[in-house]
Amino acid sequence: MAEEVGERIAEAGAVLVCGGLGGVMEAASKGAKKQGGITIGILPGNDKDHANQYIDFPIVTGLGEGRNLLVVRNSDAVIAFPGEFGTLSEIAFCLKLCKPIIGLSTWEVSDEIIQAKNAQEAVSIAISQAKAL
Amino acid sequence: MAEEVGERIAEAGAVLVCGGLGGVMEAASKGAKKQGGITIGILPGNDKDHANQYIDFPIVTGLGEGRNLLVVRNSDAVIAFPGEFGTLSEIAFCLKLCKPIIGLSTWEVSDEIIQAKNAQEAVSIAISQAKAL
Amino acid sequence: MAEEVGERIAEAGAVLVCGGLGGVMEAASKGAKKQGGITIGILPGNDKDHANQYIDFPIVTGLGEGRNLLVVRNSDAVIAFPGEFGTLSEIAFCLKLCKPIIGLSTWEVSDEIIQAKNAQEAVSIAISQAKAL
Amino acid sequence: MAEEVGERIAEAGAVLVCGGLGGVMEAASKGAKKQGGITIGILPGNDKDHANQYIDFPIVTGLGEGRNLLVVRNSDAVIAFPGEFGTLSEIAFCLKLCKPIIGLSTWEVSDEIIQAKNAQEAVSIAISQAKAL
Repeated sequence: MAEEVGERIAEAGAVLVCGGLGGVMEAASKGAKKQGGITIGILPGNDKDHANQYIDFPIVTGLGEGRNLLVVRNSDAVIAFPGEFGTLSEIAFCLKLCKPIIGLSTWEVSDEIIQAKNAQEAVSIAISQAKAL
Repeated sequence: MAEEVGERIAEAGAVLVCGGLGGVMEAASKGAKKQGGITIGILPGNDKDHANQYIDFPIVTGLGEGRNLLVVRNSDAVIAFPGEFGTLSEIAFCLKLCKPIIGLSTWEVSDEIIQAKNAQEAVSIAISQAKAL
Repeated sequence: MAEEVGERIAEAGAVLVCGGLGGVMEAASKGAKKQGGITIGILPGNDKDHANQYIDFPIVTGLGEGRNLLVVRNSDAVIAFPGEFGTLSEIAFCLKLCKPIIGLSTWEVSDEIIQAKNAQEAVSIAISQAKAL
Repeated sequence: MAEEVGERIAEAGAVLVCGGLGGVMEAASKGAKKQGGITIGILPGNDKDHANQYIDFPIVTGLGEGRNLLVVRNSDAVIAFPGEFGTLSEIAFCLKLCKPIIGLSTWEVSDEIIQAKNAQEAVSIAISQAKAL
């Protein structure tokens, strides 16, 4: 599903911003590159080589988990996947900063998270929310 | 309840670390000072005068919401009160970093949050968890 | 001269990373875009609209002057122009982190700063130093 | 000399803020504690046990070299010793932020650095400058 979200983001002409590492981040980046999109990975450490292979522009921060806030701040809209506490911190910052947030089977901690049924719907809502800013 | 938590922390000889601003943070700081405790406030901005009047040592960070991570990192154990999304981000970081976390009617996002019935119990658990580190 | 540095960086196929604001940063970004290059601006604040018009990818940090360290960390080699204390902090971090640094009439605080006579020489040295990493 | 600076700071009733590690930082902290002063160490990493033994309140940041900016921001006046590039970055931030800065045989990069002859003079100037803020 993350890969498809990446694909749809690229098709919409948007830039994919993520945490730059593996798992969901890598799958989404892979999807975006498959469709010729652009990917930015905001990394916790200081070594850009830790970015996954689908990241065009790795941004090192040296902030550790603090980079989660930067991922959110650098996004016009956020799509949250099932995840653990790092994801939860990003959702919390999103809600705190009143950024549009779309959930795909993720933490249900607020009614402000717009629940989407699938990748296509999530990206469609994210794009329209971002444009409305 | 926050004030009582501050009092109990001071009585236990522990240092109160918090976000340094108003509301729950100020109430807990007030309680700690009432019992002769020491208070550290880790502030989001760059102006130490934004600390509440009960903070002995304001630490400015200029990190905005990113200071929430520093509050957690500078704590041996965390007591979470009912709060909004800033609190949720701190809980998420606590869980991510595997720090002991005690909840007082706060966000119930994980079984790893030890639920306490009242201020006294919360502080008692926090102190014993911190000592066990 | 900053504009020419930007042009030469783009011609070399390298990405221009800078602080994203006006003055030297804007001139270099303008030069890079003139030659079809890519520009990344690492901003002190949280508003990407503060980036100059030649920045392709603004990265907000909310770190204030602390973003100077991120500019350095995200560079393979640094070209330092005449500047004030912000520039000096970047030079200091560069030297601290042992990153290649090329000076164009900038602060002469260390023999490790490779002095270049002009934009072309500065970029040429920067590229070769970055490749040698 | 650092130890004497620490002693004089404590005698003046001021709090010593430093980077919390060894060398000059440790010597100054030792001096402050010898005179019953209070010491705060703002650490680059996330482990408070890295603070030297004379630090009362270690503050972990996880910001690496970025913590140098926090040391400056948390000071009312700065006394700069002979040092390397980390010191230079702190001096640069001090000048950038227009904080009072007193130099003891340190980097001579600006006339705004007030040169002191010895520890006593440095602390005396620092205290009066800080009070004038």
